[in-house]
Amino acid sequence: MPSYVAPIQDYRFLLHHVIKMQDHTDLPPYQEATPDLIDAILEEAGKISTELLHPLNQSGDAQGCRLDGDQVLTPDGFKDAYRTYCQGGWLSLVGNPEYGGQGLPRILGLAVDELAVSANWGLAMYAGLTNGAAAAIDVWGTDIQKQAYLPRMLSGDWAGTMNLTEPHCGTDLGLIRTKAEPAEDGSYRLTGTKIFISAGDHDLTENIIHLVLARVPGGPEGVKGISLFIVPKILIKDDGTLGERNAVSCGALEHKMGIHSNATCVMNYDGATGYLLGDLHEGMRAMFTMMNEARLGVAVQGLAIAEIAQQNAATYARDRLQGRALTGPKAPDKAADPIIVHPDVRRNLMLNRAFIEGARALVMWTGLQVDLSHSHPDEDRRKGALDFVALLTPVLKSYLTDEGFQATSRALQCFGGHGYIREWGMEQFMRDARIAPIYEGTNGIQAMDLIGRKLPADNGRAIRAYFALIQQAIDDIPEDDRLKNYAASLEQAKEALQKASLWLMEHAMKNPDHAGGAAQNYLNLMALNALGHMWLLMAKEAYSHLQLNDGDADFMHNKLKTADFFFAHILPDSQAYLAKITAGADSIMALEAEAF
Amino acid sequence: MPSYVAPIQDYRFLLHHVIKMQDHTDLPPYQEATPDLIDAILEEAGKISTELLHPLNQSGDAQGCRLDGDQVLTPDGFKDAYRTYCQGGWLSLVGNPEYGGQGLPRILGLAVDELAVSANWGLAMYAGLTNGAAAAIDVWGTDIQKQAYLPRMLSGDWAGTMNLTEPHCGTDLGLIRTKAEPAEDGSYRLTGTKIFISAGDHDLTENIIHLVLARVPGGPEGVKGISLFIVPKILIKDDGTLGERNAVSCGALEHKMGIHSNATCVMNYDGATGYLLGDLHEGMRAMFTMMNEARLGVAVQGLAIAEIAQQNAATYARDRLQGRALTGPKAPDKAADPIIVHPDVRRNLMLNRAFIEGARALVMWTGLQVDLSHSHPDEDRRKGALDFVALLTPVLKSYLTDEGFQATSRALQCFGGHGYIREWGMEQFMRDARIAPIYEGTNGIQAMDLIGRKLPADNGRAIRAYFALIQQAIDDIPEDDRLKNYAASLEQAKEALQKASLWLMEHAMKNPDHAGGAAQNYLNLMALNALGHMWLLMAKEAYSHLQLNDGDADFMHNKLKTADFFFAHILPDSQAYLAKITAGADSIMALEAEAF
Repeated sequence: MPSYVAPIQDYRFLLHHVIKMQDHTDLPPYQEATPDLIDAILEEAGKISTELLHPLNQSGDAQGCRLDGDQVLTPDGFKDAYRTYCQGGWLSLVGNPEYGGQGLPRILGLAVDELAVSANWGLAMYAGLTNGAAAAIDVWGTDIQKQAYLPRMLSGDWAGTMNLTEPHCGTDLGLIRTKAEPAEDGSYRLTGTKIFISAGDHDLTENIIHLVLARVPGGPEGVKGISLFIVPKILIKDDGTLGERNAVSCGALEHKMGIHSNATCVMNYDGATGYLLGDLHEGMRAMFTMMNEARLGVAVQGLAIAEIAQQNAATYARDRLQGRALTGPKAPDKAADPIIVHPDVRRNLMLNRAFIEGARALVMWTGLQVDLSHSHPDEDRRKGALDFVALLTPVLKSYLTDEGFQATSRALQCFGGHGYIREWGMEQFMRDARIAPIYEGTNGIQAMDLIGRKLPADNGRAIRAYFALIQQAIDDIPEDDRLKNYAASLEQAKEALQKASLWLMEHAMKNPDHAGGAAQNYLNLMALNALGHMWLLMAKEAYSHLQLNDGDADFMHNKLKTADFFFAHILPDSQAYLAKITAGADSIMALEAEAF
Repeated sequence: MPSYVAPIQDYRFLLHHVIKMQDHTDLPPYQEATPDLIDAILEEAGKISTELLHPLNQSGDAQGCRLDGDQVLTPDGFKDAYRTYCQGGWLSLVGNPEYGGQGLPRILGLAVDELAVSANWGLAMYAGLTNGAAAAIDVWGTDIQKQAYLPRMLSGDWAGTMNLTEPHCGTDLGLIRTKAEPAEDGSYRLTGTKIFISAGDHDLTENIIHLVLARVPGGPEGVKGISLFIVPKILIKDDGTLGERNAVSCGALEHKMGIHSNATCVMNYDGATGYLLGDLHEGMRAMFTMMNEARLGVAVQGLAIAEIAQQNAATYARDRLQGRALTGPKAPDKAADPIIVHPDVRRNLMLNRAFIEGARALVMWTGLQVDLSHSHPDEDRRKGALDFVALLTPVLKSYLTDEGFQATSRALQCFGGHGYIREWGMEQFMRDARIAPIYEGTNGIQAMDLIGRKLPADNGRAIRAYFALIQQAIDDIPEDDRLKNYAASLEQAKEALQKASLWLMEHAMKNPDHAGGAAQNYLNLMALNALGHMWLLMAKEAYSHLQLNDGDADFMHNKLKTADFFFAHILPDSQAYLAKITAGADSIMALEAEAF
C-alpha cells in the first residue's frame, strides 16, 4: 500500500525564501499570513492529507461510486472524511471572508491543494469543484445570490459543479443545445443533457449547486448566445431552508479509466429551475472565471500525482534488492544492492525530482501572481501580474499534466512488474493521472489558447514582459561558475523561445496552420524556460543560504545538485523543440484526411 | 466500440518491395513463401484477427480471468476462439515442420503477431508463450522431449509458459530460490513459488507445459547454478496420454492494470515433477533462447497496440465535429469541422503514423535478419545477421514499447473525454500498453543489455557493421533533393550516435555509471537511427515506384509525406539525446539515496 508525506520543507523554502511571502505585505491577505501561520497551515494540511484523506484513496478507487436510483453514493468513508475536511476550514481557506471564507492568500490554497490531491485526488475534487463554483458566484452573482449560496458552499454543507460538456460538444461550446426557457417569475427552466460532469451527484452534502451553460431561445447563435445558470439540486425556499427536489438528476455514471471515487455523471435537466448568473448571453465570460482557476488547479493535480508516485518509487528503490552497482557492491552484506544504486533508476528519479521541484516553484510563483492580480493596491501591478497569470495558465495546465503523467509512469517503471499490480497503488496513480491532460480543455486546446490568444494579446505585452523577467533573473545571478553556467543554459533556452516567437510571427500570418502545428512544441519550450527560471531563482537562494551558512545545508546542496541535473538533462530539449517548431506545418498537414 | 482493419497494404509494400523477400531465395523457408502465398497469409490473418479475435477484446478485458479452485477460467469465448486460431495453423506458422509446424519464415510470424496482438493482446499472448516455450524445447530438448511435447504444443492442444520471476527476484535471476531435487528416476522434484507468470494457468488447453528456472542443490551460487526444467501441468504417461495432475498450481491471480484477459498467476510448485531441459546449470543460456524471441515479440506488442489505437483515433478525428479549421471552414454545411482539420490533432496522428510505419519496417528488417541468422547457407552471413539481431533486439523491445505506449496515449488524447471512458476502448489500449515496457526485462534492462553486452561484444563488431550499413543506405540514395535531404538528416543522426559511442568509450571506462546513466538515451538515439534507416529505405522504394509509374501512387506519395514528417519532426530529437548522454552521470548520481 502506498504512503504519503507532505513535502513541507520544500514549501517552506519556496514560500519563505524564493517567493518571499513576507516581502509582500502590500498585499492585504499576506499581512495576516505570517511565517508561523503559514508553517502551521502546511503542517496541519499535511497531517489531514496523510491521516484523513490518504487512507481512503485506494479503497475509494476499488469501490468507486455507485448509482442507487438517481442518487450517487460515494465510497465508504468519504462522507465523514469530507465533513471533517470542510469543518477543519480547508475548503474555505481562500474563500471570501464576507461569506465565511478565511480570505487567506490563494498561493496557500494552491499549496494545500497539492497535498490534498496527492493524498486523494477523487475526494479532493469534490472540494475543488465547490470552490470553483463559489468563486464564479462570488464574481458574477448578485448580493442576494452570494448571500444565498456562498456561506453554505464555503462551509461545505453544499457542493458545486460546472456543467459545460454535452454529448456532441466539448471544446466547441458554441454547439451547446441545452435550453433555458424564461419563466414568469424571472427564473428559467433548463432542459438538456450534460455529460462528463465531475461530482455531478453524490451523497457528501445536503445540496449541490450546479452552474450550467445553456441557451436562452432567441439569443445569438454560437458562443455569443450562451448564458450561465445556477441550478440547485434541491430548491431553496425563501427562508433559506431546503425545499423540493429540482428537475435535475444523474442519469448514469461514466465508467472511467481512473478517478473512480469521483462521480462523473450524465446529468439530465428536465425543465429544471435555474437562475441567471451574470448577464444574459455572457455565460462564457462568467465560465472563464471558473475555468482559469480550475486550469491552475488541474496543473496542481499533475504535480501532486507525480509527487506521491515519486515518493513511493524512491522508497521502493531504496528497499528493493536486485543486482549490484556498476561501481562495485554497495550492500555487500546483502544478497543484492538496492536498485537505487543503478544509474538508470536514479536517472528516472532525478527526472521526476527536477520536474516536481521546478513545477512546484512555478505553481507558487504563479500563485503569487494570482494574488498580486487580485490584491495589489497598484493597478499597473495588478495588470502586469494578470498578464503573467493569463500567459502561464495554459503552460502550467498542459506541461504539468503531461509531464506529471510521464513522471508517474517513470515512478511506476521503478517497480518493475509490481508497478503493474493493483496492490502497490502505482497503477492507480497512472490511471488517475491520465485525466489531467484531457479535462478543463485538452492540452492541445491549452497550446492554442497560448499561441492564439495569450501571445498576441496587447501586442505581445505579456511575453515581452516575461522575456524581460527571465533576462533579469539571468543578469542577477551571482559571480559563481556553477550558477553562471545555469544562467548561460537558460539564456540559450530563452533565445530558442525568442527565435521560435519570431518564426511564428513571420510564418503564422501567411499560414495559420504553422501556428497550430507549432503550438504544443512552443508551449513546451516556454514551459522549459519557466522551469529554468524557477531553477535559477531556487539555485540562487540555495547558494546564498550556503554562503551565509544559513538553513539546512544538506537541503541547499541537494537543491543545487538537482539544479545541476535540470540544466544538464532536461533543458537541452529546448533545441529540439525549436527545431520542430521551425520545421513548420507542411508535413503535418500534407496527407488527406482519408489517408489516415 | 473500437474497430480494427489489418494494415495489409503496408505489409505488402514492406515484404515485397523494401525487404524484397523474393530476392532471398537462398533462404530455404523463403523459397516456398511466394508473393501469392504471403499475400494470402496476410489476408487470412487479417480476417481472423478482425473477425475472430477482435470481437472478444473488450469483453475479455471487462470479464477478466477468474480463479475457480485451483483452475483459472478465461473470459467467455476465449476457448473456442483459441481452438479455431490454432486449428487454422496460426500458432504453428513458423514452427519446426518435423513436429507439425509449417516452417514458414519467422518474418511472417512477426507480421501475423502484430495483427493478432492489435486485435486481442490478451488472447494472442497464450499463443505467443506457447511458441516461445516450444522454441526453447526445439533448441535445447532431447529428441524424446521434442517428440513428446512439440507436436502437441504446435497443434495448440497444449500450451506453454516461462517461469522466471520469484517474489524477491525479477531482473536479478541469480537470487532464484526454487529448488529442484533429483529423484531416483532421473527426473526432479521442484518446490518454490513463481510470480507474474503470464498464462500460468487457464482452460484453453488440456495441458500446460511450464518451463521453470530452478536451482539443483549443491550447484554453484548465483546465475551459474540455475537450470531449466520442463514441468507439465498434467503428467504425461509413457504412452503419451495424460495422467495425473502434477504438483503445480495457480495459487492466486494478480489484479493488474491491464491485459486482464491473460491470466497472470502466482504458481506454487510443491514437489512437482520436472525434467531437465538442456544441460545442468545452463538454464540461463536455454532461457535466453526464449527470451530473445520473446523480446522481439514484446516489441511487436508496442507496435500493435499503437496501430489499433491510431486507427480508432483517425476514425474518430474524421467523424467528430468540433471547431473550425484555422484556414477557414472545411465542412461549411456542418455545425463544425471534423477535428482532423486541426494541426495539433494532425500532428499527433502524424507522430503516430511515422512511428508505426517506421517501427513496422524495423520489425520486418529485423525479422529478415532472424531468418538469415537461422537459415542462410553461408556461416558468415548467419553470423553477421545474428549480430544485428542481438544488437537491435533490446533497441526494438525498449523503443517500440515506450513509444508504442506514448502513441497509444496520443491516440487516446484525440478522443478528449471520450478517450477516458471505457466504452470507446482507448483506455483499455493504454492499460494494456503499459505492461510492455516492463515485462521480458524492463526497458532499463534492455538499455543496459545494449550498452553493457551488445555494444562491446567482439570489439564492437556489430555496431561497426551497423554504422556501415546506415552509411551505405545514405550513399545509395538517388539524386533527388527531397531524398538527399533525408539522407543528410540521417547522416547527422548517425554522427550523433557515433559521437555518443566515442564519448561512452572514453568515459565509461573511468566511471561505469556514465554508461548506466547514458544507456537509455543511447538506446533511444540508436532507435532513431534505426527508424531513420528504415524511412530512407522506404522513401527510396516509394520514389522509385513513382518514377516508374508503378504501384499505388497515392500510397507512395503518402509514404514520402510521412517520411518528410519523420525527418522534420522526430529525428531532431537525436541532438537532444546526444546532449544528455554527454552531460554525463555526475548529476544523476550526486544525491544520497536517503535524500530522495
